[in-house]
Amino acid sequence: MKREIELFQEKMQENMISMFLVTTGDYHLSEYVDDYFKIRAFLSGFTGSAGTLLITRENALLWTDGRYFIQAEKQLQNTGIELMKSGEEGVPTLEAYIQDNLCEGETLCLDGKMISAEEGEKLESVVKSIKGTLKNEQWIDEIWTDRPSQNFRRVERLGLFFTGRRVKEKLEMVQEAMKTEGADCFVLSSLDDIAWLYNLRGTDILHNPVFYSYSVIDDSQAYLFAKKEVFDELLLETLKEEHVTVLPYDTFYEYLGSAIKNRHVWADGKHSSYFVFETLKKDENHNHIIDKENPTLLWKAVKTTVEAENIREAHEKDALAMIRFLYWVKNRVKEDRPLTEKEAADYLDQLRLSNRECRDISFDTIAAYGENAAICHYSPGKDSAVLRPEGFLLVDSGGQYTKGTTDVTRTIALGELTKRQKEHYTLVLKGNIRLAAARFPKGVCGANLDVLAREPLWERGLDYNHGTGHGVGYYLNVHEGPQNISWKVSQRKGNLVELLPGMVISDEPGVYLEGEYGIRLENLILVIKADEPRMKNFLEFETLTLVPFEREAILPELLNEKEKLWLNQYHQRIFELYAKKVTPRERQWLRETTGPF
Amino acid sequence: MKREIELFQEKMQENMISMFLVTTGDYHLSEYVDDYFKIRAFLSGFTGSAGTLLITRENALLWTDGRYFIQAEKQLQNTGIELMKSGEEGVPTLEAYIQDNLCEGETLCLDGKMISAEEGEKLESVVKSIKGTLKNEQWIDEIWTDRPSQNFRRVERLGLFFTGRRVKEKLEMVQEAMKTEGADCFVLSSLDDIAWLYNLRGTDILHNPVFYSYSVIDDSQAYLFAKKEVFDELLLETLKEEHVTVLPYDTFYEYLGSAIKNRHVWADGKHSSYFVFETLKKDENHNHIIDKENPTLLWKAVKTTVEAENIREAHEKDALAMIRFLYWVKNRVKEDRPLTEKEAADYLDQLRLSNRECRDISFDTIAAYGENAAICHYSPGKDSAVLRPEGFLLVDSGGQYTKGTTDVTRTIALGELTKRQKEHYTLVLKGNIRLAAARFPKGVCGANLDVLAREPLWERGLDYNHGTGHGVGYYLNVHEGPQNISWKVSQRKGNLVELLPGMVISDEPGVYLEGEYGIRLENLILVIKADEPRMKNFLEFETLTLVPFEREAILPELLNEKEKLWLNQYHQRIFELYAKKVTPRERQWLRETTGPF
Repeated sequence: MKREIELFQEKMQENMISMFLVTTGDYHLSEYVDDYFKIRAFLSGFTGSAGTLLITRENALLWTDGRYFIQAEKQLQNTGIELMKSGEEGVPTLEAYIQDNLCEGETLCLDGKMISAEEGEKLESVVKSIKGTLKNEQWIDEIWTDRPSQNFRRVERLGLFFTGRRVKEKLEMVQEAMKTEGADCFVLSSLDDIAWLYNLRGTDILHNPVFYSYSVIDDSQAYLFAKKEVFDELLLETLKEEHVTVLPYDTFYEYLGSAIKNRHVWADGKHSSYFVFETLKKDENHNHIIDKENPTLLWKAVKTTVEAENIREAHEKDALAMIRFLYWVKNRVKEDRPLTEKEAADYLDQLRLSNRECRDISFDTIAAYGENAAICHYSPGKDSAVLRPEGFLLVDSGGQYTKGTTDVTRTIALGELTKRQKEHYTLVLKGNIRLAAARFPKGVCGANLDVLAREPLWERGLDYNHGTGHGVGYYLNVHEGPQNISWKVSQRKGNLVELLPGMVISDEPGVYLEGEYGIRLENLILVIKADEPRMKNFLEFETLTLVPFEREAILPELLNEKEKLWLNQYHQRIFELYAKKVTPRERQWLRETTGPF
Repeated sequence: MKREIELFQEKMQENMISMFLVTTGDYHLSEYVDDYFKIRAFLSGFTGSAGTLLITRENALLWTDGRYFIQAEKQLQNTGIELMKSGEEGVPTLEAYIQDNLCEGETLCLDGKMISAEEGEKLESVVKSIKGTLKNEQWIDEIWTDRPSQNFRRVERLGLFFTGRRVKEKLEMVQEAMKTEGADCFVLSSLDDIAWLYNLRGTDILHNPVFYSYSVIDDSQAYLFAKKEVFDELLLETLKEEHVTVLPYDTFYEYLGSAIKNRHVWADGKHSSYFVFETLKKDENHNHIIDKENPTLLWKAVKTTVEAENIREAHEKDALAMIRFLYWVKNRVKEDRPLTEKEAADYLDQLRLSNRECRDISFDTIAAYGENAAICHYSPGKDSAVLRPEGFLLVDSGGQYTKGTTDVTRTIALGELTKRQKEHYTLVLKGNIRLAAARFPKGVCGANLDVLAREPLWERGLDYNHGTGHGVGYYLNVHEGPQNISWKVSQRKGNLVELLPGMVISDEPGVYLEGEYGIRLENLILVIKADEPRMKNFLEFETLTLVPFEREAILPELLNEKEKLWLNQYHQRIFELYAKKVTPRERQWLRETTGPF
């Protein structure tokens, strides 16, 4: 057994614990986590983004999903940890395993700050049903001696020209919603919601401009639990004027447990930790918990007109880097010197970051050549593939601009393409255009529209095993709820959220042929009111991303007139915008590649 | 105040009742009801298919929805009954009205056999919240002296060649499902589910081939509560062999209250009456109710291969009547003698019923000329409009064949059409074809596909205010759950039901211009596995209805190649099928009207 696990098991024995559950996540249930929180990776050696480790007295098991089976098998070799392939036949769920293997009177232990109240309560009821005990403890610091420390980096304020809405106004919205729900106290733990609410941004999590914090709001005051050191004097002063009191990050749970009594407390069980609920529910507190979705989730998704205008600007800047990259990589790959996926990705990052307003990339750039692109979560490492002047290079990337977050995928023809490659490229493009050109009445949700992007593929028995679109933040997380575009109604409830003017969402159909190639075409689109006066209750999309598609990969005979018109107008708009911003050589290429079909 | 209401109010006073609620429906919560159950219409004078009457000590109020505002206003004139327009601003819901107007200690009375358990329990909690009492009583017979009697007509058995599944097998399916749910008893009240389960059909409700009955099933026996007189000797014998015991219809509630004790009883709260739940829950019974959807609902919707084959045959027969009608009406309207909507509808009914296998029409035929077609629930009365040789006649009709139920809408060009009429007709046709031609992976539901039928309209800011498709029974109700095709996910949960091979569903987009005209084109389609071997997990639709569209109303330049191909193949198939079954004159017309575009 891996040494770290053995040490953990010793601690378990000392404390009479039968099972210890190690989740993936942080105190704020973030999608991406900082090194400090990579406890599961430290203990198990498995570094995928999703996985749950269960340590028993003598064994250890790791559950992960289909995306990571191969990686997990490799990384768990010789660790003594058993891989539990979630969803495979005969593999019990975590809950079922605990139900069957924890004995009466035994104790399951977990870090209640690192699991959502919803999941924690589900486990609690499993454990109770077998008359066991659920305990909340964490000893990782005693074992992980060189554990990195939690980041608490400088926080900056986004002014009204960036956000279009004052903190005061946002807090009033919260207080109004509290009144409607009969809540006299609102507890917020999700980092992007807090960043949005206080018009603040940080850099505590790689590529996610958030900062570690909690917040509690009552009918007159707002409390922000964060490291005081990350705010400068001026910012602290401003917050004070806005009736926002900054309290130490470490005192949040203490505050919850002692200051909040006899209250109707609104806390979102999906976005608050199990320990938040446990603390509020302590016997002497007499709180009533209103477990309802954070209202900030929807407000944050609906961008203000100022944000929308800024986002347009950010995309204009971002596209310049992408256009330059396209020209460069298509030419560079023809040279004799080898170019790897990683080098191409790094070059693109450089181009992006050379813009002053681009503070960071919005996620690790994916540059996947040939068959690597068929692996949806591929990320080029040090020994990444060398690009050749043939086939497709898929590049999925984005930037964190002070005026917005971008996310764009282009699949680049590096040279000769087969007929089938072109056919698949064109079908994906058709889907992308069909969705982008949709018009629909108010009330429509993502589950209604997903088919538009897939119909050209479904018609031929093709499909892609991911959603068509995810929400995107404003200079915030590149994945943002609540809305999404996908069709499986049982899996992703976000596709039943009404699309509202101001929402930014991705449009990214694809085709992936294992061992051969992968194609994905992704633009960000903004929900707006339909342009024509006779369409009073109709909405449509404005395409934000401004990067040409691959002329060489398109079979124009597969496009219908409407799609051709859309594509020609899109390309013309790009040429007009960038003709004067690029070098003469780039311009020559851009003119050709954006010419009408 | 209307005399009937006053008599009712006297009864209320005698019995110390403050409010009496009169619902629409029958003991089986059927969509269409027999005259015996038209209590609300008798008391109020309002005859629409949806409405709820609340009689208070001194007033009476009637709630109905937008489809019926005009009709209700007319019919309630001088009755003293106040019209409550559901959904209009400032109009309280029934629940809210009761909450605000029933006083502490007062009693609300209703007939618990005529309201679903779900709705009844909702009202119960409203009444309890204001410390009132909910009472279950009915005195209508004392007031409605010439009330028609409840129909109990002869029941016939459908053999295996019709249904493809024996009663024994169906009962085993129920018992298997009961085991899975931990139920030792299953109570079924919905008439079409019972008809399906026992392979029996009746004629108790107009155009709905069902018979009044309840059923209770345990792990070894099945009890059918019905009038014994409606079964002939042979049928009773057969049922006996299948371990089905027929008990008197009137003893159902008595049986529920006395024979079912200490059991886990499965009863669907949406499809069982409030009184069923009340009876099962009586203090001394100690039953545990499992409130879950009737499993028969989904099984009935998924037609057997035998049923599907029969349905194809029924549609072939039905289309002949429709084709003859089309030819006839288009010529007849040119003659000098006036022809009314009603006469046209009657002629079509005759054509249909001239087929021996057509037992009935499947609903009252809608023949709506010109602006009348813009009213979705229009039904031609005695003073119906005279058809002229111009514009559109919308005809929505269907038949009850022993081999299946049909439902078809065609909008017929009686003469000259405007450019806009043709454009709208072609857009509706595009939507109809798009949906019919869809291919999709297993798992897709109606909410995912609805947009295909609407996209051509939405693109131009047009829409229709009804669902795109409803399920259709096999020689059963023309409206059948659970699946449907519509986009509003909050309103109709049926659109989140997975489409399965064997489901029959309608495809009926439309355009309605108030005061001008209405267009609807409806075919029935059958979910089948995709035809090509490479499309393993894909499904598609087979179009069952075989009636030509209006050549004169189609603008071919609005159809894309795929749509034209579909339409040409569809028309060719129709011509080949019917060329030899019609008169030479009809054949000449059919050849022209089904020619390729």
